[in-house]
Amino acid sequence: MNQLQKKENPSISLPVRSLSNIYFDPVHKLIKIGDKKSQRHYLNVAHTRKFMQTLLVASECKKIIEQGVTTSIRDLYYALKHTIEGTKENTFEGQEESDPVLEDLESALNLLREELHLKADRKGYMAGNIMIEDSGDRINCAKMGSSGWAIPSDVEPEMIKFVENNAKFVVLIEKDAVWQRLNEDKFWQKQNCLIITGKGQPARGCRRLINRLHKELGLPIYVLADADPWGYYIYSVIKQGSINLSFLSDRLGTPDAKFIGLTTKDAIEYGISNNVTIKLNKGDQKRIKEMIKYVWFKPKEWQQELKRMLKAGYKLELEALSSKGIRFISEKYLPDKIRKQDFLP
Amino acid sequence: MNQLQKKENPSISLPVRSLSNIYFDPVHKLIKIGDKKSQRHYLNVAHTRKFMQTLLVASECKKIIEQGVTTSIRDLYYALKHTIEGTKENTFEGQEESDPVLEDLESALNLLREELHLKADRKGYMAGNIMIEDSGDRINCAKMGSSGWAIPSDVEPEMIKFVENNAKFVVLIEKDAVWQRLNEDKFWQKQNCLIITGKGQPARGCRRLINRLHKELGLPIYVLADADPWGYYIYSVIKQGSINLSFLSDRLGTPDAKFIGLTTKDAIEYGISNNVTIKLNKGDQKRIKEMIKYVWFKPKEWQQELKRMLKAGYKLELEALSSKGIRFISEKYLPDKIRKQDFLP
Repeated sequence: MNQLQKKENPSISLPVRSLSNIYFDPVHKLIKIGDKKSQRHYLNVAHTRKFMQTLLVASECKKIIEQGVTTSIRDLYYALKHTIEGTKENTFEGQEESDPVLEDLESALNLLREELHLKADRKGYMAGNIMIEDSGDRINCAKMGSSGWAIPSDVEPEMIKFVENNAKFVVLIEKDAVWQRLNEDKFWQKQNCLIITGKGQPARGCRRLINRLHKELGLPIYVLADADPWGYYIYSVIKQGSINLSFLSDRLGTPDAKFIGLTTKDAIEYGISNNVTIKLNKGDQKRIKEMIKYVWFKPKEWQQELKRMLKAGYKLELEALSSKGIRFISEKYLPDKIRKQDFLP
Repeated sequence: MNQLQKKENPSISLPVRSLSNIYFDPVHKLIKIGDKKSQRHYLNVAHTRKFMQTLLVASECKKIIEQGVTTSIRDLYYALKHTIEGTKENTFEGQEESDPVLEDLESALNLLREELHLKADRKGYMAGNIMIEDSGDRINCAKMGSSGWAIPSDVEPEMIKFVENNAKFVVLIEKDAVWQRLNEDKFWQKQNCLIITGKGQPARGCRRLINRLHKELGLPIYVLADADPWGYYIYSVIKQGSINLSFLSDRLGTPDAKFIGLTTKDAIEYGISNNVTIKLNKGDQKRIKEMIKYVWFKPKEWQQELKRMLKAGYKLELEALSSKGIRFISEKYLPDKIRKQDFLP
């Protein structure tokens, strides 16, 4: 408006989200976005389309916030897609055009999409001695049978309240099958903890929940993942955020998280049979060599682990522990590791 | 045992699960498996390995049932994988060897894997006026906030009890984003129904739940999916089961289910803009032509719909309804269709 009144070329200032503006902040131990800004101008043929799209997305967000409703990023795209009157030009050709514009807005406003009333995909479950409140409903996560509480996309404090917590720590589990094992064995009751699974790489809602459980309730976070490059990557994203969502690291990352397992060292110490190890392929080897160089894998324990894996030539899935017995993980392995505080940093 | 005492060649009798033994049962309106059996012999070099694997899986199932625990099919594989003493032969080389053996056992015993204490992948959520009981916990699906109740893998009557139901029908929704829209608008409260999403093709637990809600509580089932070959396929699997799991059709299929939408006819009747339709690709066209020939798409309403789609040359996602307004689906489209009982058979 100001720009229009001054008869200037209207423009929007946006943080640069490419690798050149991403760095690891050694103080906060998070992947962060730098100060570089770019301008998106209306009167610039290279910018006009994106400028129009940015304003469309922003005004739709304003509309749904005012209406007090939320929607999905796919719905947002459908609601905004139309042919511009008097032309053959569509506002958006596909969702791959509207998604990055939304990320631009999130980073420019320093707001999560959930705060703009947009929902990301959700997955993941939690069980344990915590009572939460969601839209006026009180949910006791210790009374959720075999399912657990399904973690929604929006877990911001306005939406999800921690009413009462009695748990002492959190175990984040890569795999749902392992979560179900621990839930069936009432591991969370015996150890008085919360168990969460992200079902693979956790969705944003799950990462934000972990962040809140640590920051607001002071709960230590232990990550339980496969002993392979993907499992270690999942851990690193939980811990210091990701390059893609670097502008949200302080809300999605939890630098104090620890890695409880699985490691190739565990395989030796707990006598896991060679039959259930998996040979590293070329992609694994390349990935491990890259990870050895990452600043967040510099602590000597991680250097040892990554080099040990490369030398041993194998990786392990959490299910490998089942070869020692179905309840080995809940009755022996995890209680042992927790008692000894045997974690990687 | 009998065979061994008689000094016969030990063998196991298994239903033939190939296409040659699959048929559509017009009376029950389900895809069924025929009577053909094959024998798996111990003393036959072509059968020995599979014979050994079948017994290993069967004995592990017996063990976990006796221990009163459940496990995942991946854990089962890990628990059984080992090198046979005195040889270099492994019992299983990969899970792709143990999974079909389990399906053999399910069909031979006419039991779901859940009854053998094995868990399949789970996904899907439910909300509405129903109280269920799971492992001694009572869960009120009308008080589950923005999440809904997460549908577990095992929903057999021993595990999941319907304690009290006040809902009048069920809407099964292909997409979670649409489920979230209806949940936020309290559609299940206004219409007094249950809303379920399978998040794409529903997992076994979700299909079994639908089957039980219809059979035990007499609830009509309405399926809400995209107007495209994949959406119609999801509906057909809910309705008459699938070829892969034909031996389970009577437990996983619900022949009385109806298709509430979306259709290309809806697109015309509700004035959905051309901008939000998607052009059919060659794969879609081929698939629709195949579907026109399927015996379960023979009712004239389906023949008309499939031919209309082919002629119109486009498909639609549920999100296309958002172009008429975010709450159009919950306030206008669905109430309209339900009032008029405007369903496809």
